[in-house]
Amino acid sequence: MRLVVGFIGLGTMGAPMARNLARAGFKLRVSTRTAEKARAFAEELRGRGADVEACEEPAAAARGAEVVVSCLPDAPQVEEVHLGASGTARGAAAGTVVVDCSTIAPESASAIATRLERDGIGFLDAPVSGGQKGAIEGGLTFFVGGSAAALEKARPVLAVMGKRITHLGPSGAGQLGKAVNQIIVAVNLAAVSEGLAFAQKAGLPMDSLHEALTAGAANSWALEVLGKKMMQRDFKPAFAIKHQQKDLAIVLRSAREKGVPLPAAALVHQLLSALEAQGRGEDGTQALLTLYEKMAEPRA
Amino acid sequence: MRLVVGFIGLGTMGAPMARNLARAGFKLRVSTRTAEKARAFAEELRGRGADVEACEEPAAAARGAEVVVSCLPDAPQVEEVHLGASGTARGAAAGTVVVDCSTIAPESASAIATRLERDGIGFLDAPVSGGQKGAIEGGLTFFVGGSAAALEKARPVLAVMGKRITHLGPSGAGQLGKAVNQIIVAVNLAAVSEGLAFAQKAGLPMDSLHEALTAGAANSWALEVLGKKMMQRDFKPAFAIKHQQKDLAIVLRSAREKGVPLPAAALVHQLLSALEAQGRGEDGTQALLTLYEKMAEPRA
Amino acid sequence: MRLVVGFIGLGTMGAPMARNLARAGFKLRVSTRTAEKARAFAEELRGRGADVEACEEPAAAARGAEVVVSCLPDAPQVEEVHLGASGTARGAAAGTVVVDCSTIAPESASAIATRLERDGIGFLDAPVSGGQKGAIEGGLTFFVGGSAAALEKARPVLAVMGKRITHLGPSGAGQLGKAVNQIIVAVNLAAVSEGLAFAQKAGLPMDSLHEALTAGAANSWALEVLGKKMMQRDFKPAFAIKHQQKDLAIVLRSAREKGVPLPAAALVHQLLSALEAQGRGEDGTQALLTLYEKMAEPRA
Amino acid sequence: MRLVVGFIGLGTMGAPMARNLARAGFKLRVSTRTAEKARAFAEELRGRGADVEACEEPAAAARGAEVVVSCLPDAPQVEEVHLGASGTARGAAAGTVVVDCSTIAPESASAIATRLERDGIGFLDAPVSGGQKGAIEGGLTFFVGGSAAALEKARPVLAVMGKRITHLGPSGAGQLGKAVNQIIVAVNLAAVSEGLAFAQKAGLPMDSLHEALTAGAANSWALEVLGKKMMQRDFKPAFAIKHQQKDLAIVLRSAREKGVPLPAAALVHQLLSALEAQGRGEDGTQALLTLYEKMAEPRA
Repeated sequence: MRLVVGFIGLGTMGAPMARNLARAGFKLRVSTRTAEKARAFAEELRGRGADVEACEEPAAAARGAEVVVSCLPDAPQVEEVHLGASGTARGAAAGTVVVDCSTIAPESASAIATRLERDGIGFLDAPVSGGQKGAIEGGLTFFVGGSAAALEKARPVLAVMGKRITHLGPSGAGQLGKAVNQIIVAVNLAAVSEGLAFAQKAGLPMDSLHEALTAGAANSWALEVLGKKMMQRDFKPAFAIKHQQKDLAIVLRSAREKGVPLPAAALVHQLLSALEAQGRGEDGTQALLTLYEKMAEPRA
Repeated sequence: MRLVVGFIGLGTMGAPMARNLARAGFKLRVSTRTAEKARAFAEELRGRGADVEACEEPAAAARGAEVVVSCLPDAPQVEEVHLGASGTARGAAAGTVVVDCSTIAPESASAIATRLERDGIGFLDAPVSGGQKGAIEGGLTFFVGGSAAALEKARPVLAVMGKRITHLGPSGAGQLGKAVNQIIVAVNLAAVSEGLAFAQKAGLPMDSLHEALTAGAANSWALEVLGKKMMQRDFKPAFAIKHQQKDLAIVLRSAREKGVPLPAAALVHQLLSALEAQGRGEDGTQALLTLYEKMAEPRA
Repeated sequence: MRLVVGFIGLGTMGAPMARNLARAGFKLRVSTRTAEKARAFAEELRGRGADVEACEEPAAAARGAEVVVSCLPDAPQVEEVHLGASGTARGAAAGTVVVDCSTIAPESASAIATRLERDGIGFLDAPVSGGQKGAIEGGLTFFVGGSAAALEKARPVLAVMGKRITHLGPSGAGQLGKAVNQIIVAVNLAAVSEGLAFAQKAGLPMDSLHEALTAGAANSWALEVLGKKMMQRDFKPAFAIKHQQKDLAIVLRSAREKGVPLPAAALVHQLLSALEAQGRGEDGTQALLTLYEKMAEPRA
Repeated sequence: MRLVVGFIGLGTMGAPMARNLARAGFKLRVSTRTAEKARAFAEELRGRGADVEACEEPAAAARGAEVVVSCLPDAPQVEEVHLGASGTARGAAAGTVVVDCSTIAPESASAIATRLERDGIGFLDAPVSGGQKGAIEGGLTFFVGGSAAALEKARPVLAVMGKRITHLGPSGAGQLGKAVNQIIVAVNLAAVSEGLAFAQKAGLPMDSLHEALTAGAANSWALEVLGKKMMQRDFKPAFAIKHQQKDLAIVLRSAREKGVPLPAAALVHQLLSALEAQGRGEDGTQALLTLYEKMAEPRA
């Protein structure tokens, strides 16, 4: 018998993730903020033979589902979708496992887990890395917090969307793991921006230099992927500045609670904040390079 | 006919580099600060059938050499070795190419090039990345500045010591390229230190986390190699803090001249400076993690 | 006829402020979290001839009052005290002016103002600077946001507690002004800490140096007052690290919304966060000096 | 009998300092890089009845002088003026005291002292604070390093130029004290820039705000003087960015040697470096405000 999966949130990440689930043969019940969008999505996939039903509300999408996946912008939406008046908790049977793939504060995740568990609903915080590309290719990494039992139940679903599922501890631990990821991602971005800003001013041949740098101790995903885009002046978002900033704000609050000073991550948060002020919040994070250029550009 | 190569500086990097040249069959003339050390080195390699002669002074090592390689701590030594009273310029014939693999200021490299060129001696600034491991395995990356003709003459020698030889422009350009490398390396180090300091305080399982992080956008050489060492509390130097600091001091001076603000690299320079003050200048750069731990450790 | 003033919050700042109002002859109705504390306070002042009544709840303290002053830790308390089930809005007559001297987010202040104005109650956000000393001596500075009419009504009350009342604009503007104050205060603190940490390591005679520094362009309130305490190793709180941190968290959120990068203030927030992690949140902010010492202290 | 004073360096600071000495009745022997400038200076003052002689070279200016004062851009000039082929050491008699008011590295000062003392010439490093205004008004602060005996000999001369003479220890100690001054001055500047950048974006009335801020814990010389200039968009140099940067470069090198991390001062050095890159090195340091504005200005 095929597993029934509820899926809430068909955005940049959610839509391709749900598509992979549909292709893998799960019976899907989808819901998203705009009901019309859910209907179009369901129709499209049914046209390709998948078993997908559009639901008006999260509660409906959770009805009869063994696993419910959500992929949403921030904590208020996650709370509304699962605990609100027409939230999944109203539709889900005891024993259901909710997997939230949004990046939110660890304590928000724990609080939601506690409230769902009162109704016998399991909750995993399972934020992802890998970006839209990873979502499309089913190559995401899941940072998972929650009970091992809940994870075992949800694993077949996650395994279709990602190739690495890392269980990091109880509720909130997934978000903490993602926080570590975001700290490193943010500071690596500054590393590449400072390096390439210097290289440009020094008049070095960028292509040869990039090749030499990626061969050694300076290499990083940020250098390979974002560095390349910087060199091509391609500032379209793979990961938008405003999303990085939302995540860094969460991380910096968490770090203060945990008692970890993060001067480099805080610096990057401030620099990206200048880009938001410039109206570039929708640009990809690699636009950080332009701030270094702007700071030092000769006066008109 | 075998190429004769002069080699000056048999330190952590120089010794394995010279060893690779000897093994490859070049005729080597070596010199280093402590004459005894050069003699022992020559004897050891002759014992394995190599053709190596120890020389008292750089001038002697340069005599008859087509290519002279140097690998030294900083600019004053490079100047002394090549331009001093018993420097290579006193022994080298016109047409010789000097390849300096030290990391020094770009303008120092250019100044030395200019003075050697007056005597018809070619000069390449060719600082390396890849560390002692790369030096031993012949896997270094060379960032090369100088004339294309000089590089062609030296290429067979470099090709034995490294697997990537990147020509970045005229004299000084190699040092500028290495500066870019060091900026990125330094800031990536902070990225990993902040991320793992947070992870520890959050009580996350470090091995699983490291595996998840390296699979995605947070990955870097620093995370893979230095992050692993941090987790193992292995602070032995692959690249010592004091060397990173020497390089960053050069980089920050260069950046100011070029007109590039480097707030993140400057921050790392300050943090590492605290470790030097602690007496940890000889530790590997991965010891930066301990500063984050120290800053936040509960008061006794 | 004497003005009736409701006063909520008899903490470190509130108690001396209320004492000054009682001395000035206002008829006071006081309330604070612990009812017993309000009773003791009222009794003490009545013993000196003042007209003070203790009330169980904010609503009661506001009854019959022309002006209500509150002095509380953070936004949740301010909301509860004024808008809660037994908040001042339940006791205050239309035409009353509420003056909140707490430091909270500008948007929280505006939101509270809007809700009180629905009931015809005026609201001024009027955070103060000057510390406990200023509160005791009636020497506070008030940063005021709200209507000019409300300020005119409250002015006789404020004039007793402070010697400078600066009207900066509509609701929220007082908090914005205080934010500017806190940015400068925080970064000046780092200035003094870095300077004196250097001076100590350089072995300079601290008293003569302090005198020379305060005579010129390096001078600041922070140098005069906090610098002196640092030299005396007096880390008792005039302004506690945890309060500075609460304020900086508000400021940094505001700055991101307004579009102002604050790298120096963000750095100080991170450094103070290390002291919180050390368990020194209750120390005075001048303890920042010890972090610089700790970072660089020789390894045991 | 009137003291004979040699004076080398008639720049922005030196000229008004020398003028005060002439007015006080010392017999002056002046020399500066451009001989013509020294002659014009001497003529001008003789016209007012002062006893001033222009000399072609420092050696000549030192001849017969009991005290020699120098006021120069940086260490190379100080070395040349005192130790060069026509330096003061060639003209000064044993027992002369040289007072150098330039801001240079502490170890440069110590080295010069050692070499002069071989010839029986005393040396004080006596960098000043107070700016051109202090130089004109005779209100400078001297940070003095060197022997107490030398200081006693020079004191009558210094007392005419400044109103505070602080002896901080042996040779180099004056420079170390000045370094502390420059650390604090630089970071206070960032404090004011961040605060006022925020205030502008928040739309606060700047004059009232400035008044409120200077009344309390945010006050500093930087806020009073530089903050005022920022508000008036007056970026003319009292203290030029390029001079602040020269001093900060010295300070940061010293701090690394002493083992003091200075993350905030290093940040300011990087930000000012962007202004140098913009071609604003001759502007006053208060132009730092414009960098914050530039970073966040909406994209065209």
